[in-house]
Amino acid sequence: MPDLPIAAVIRIAKKSGAERVGVDAAAVLLAKTEEYIVHLSKEADRLARHAGRKTIKEEDVDLAVQWIKD
Amino acid sequence: MPDLPIAAVIRIAKKSGAERVGVDAAAVLLAKTEEYIVHLSKEADRLARHAGRKTIKEEDVDLAVQWIKD
Repeated sequence: MPDLPIAAVIRIAKKSGAERVGVDAAAVLLAKTEEYIVHLSKEADRLARHAGRKTIKEEDVDLAVQWIKD
Repeated sequence: MPDLPIAAVIRIAKKSGAERVGVDAAAVLLAKTEEYIVHLSKEADRLARHAGRKTIKEEDVDLAVQWIKD
């Protein structure tokens, strides 16, 4: 069961220029977005622990974004 | 103003193993997630139009995910 509200995901897609989003497409968009958060937060958590912290800070997320892009 | 609820983003991060997420870190995580949706839906929309459609289908999102990864 998804944590994010699908309506919010569709709203962002429409704001970005999408005219219509099919039901199945919206479900995939939602799933991929949740995967992205999982991926990003796992990397950020790894970086926080590497720095001797248990709390994820902004700098961990920033660096994790770079990693994911590369 | 973000479209996604920050509480849901933090919940996904914690489910993924993050022990604590700082307030600033959560804001960046949220912003990056919204950027991801914008990026993914713009590419999916481009693929839908390329296929002569105005409605984004599942196959457009799947292909857009591949593009973004590459």
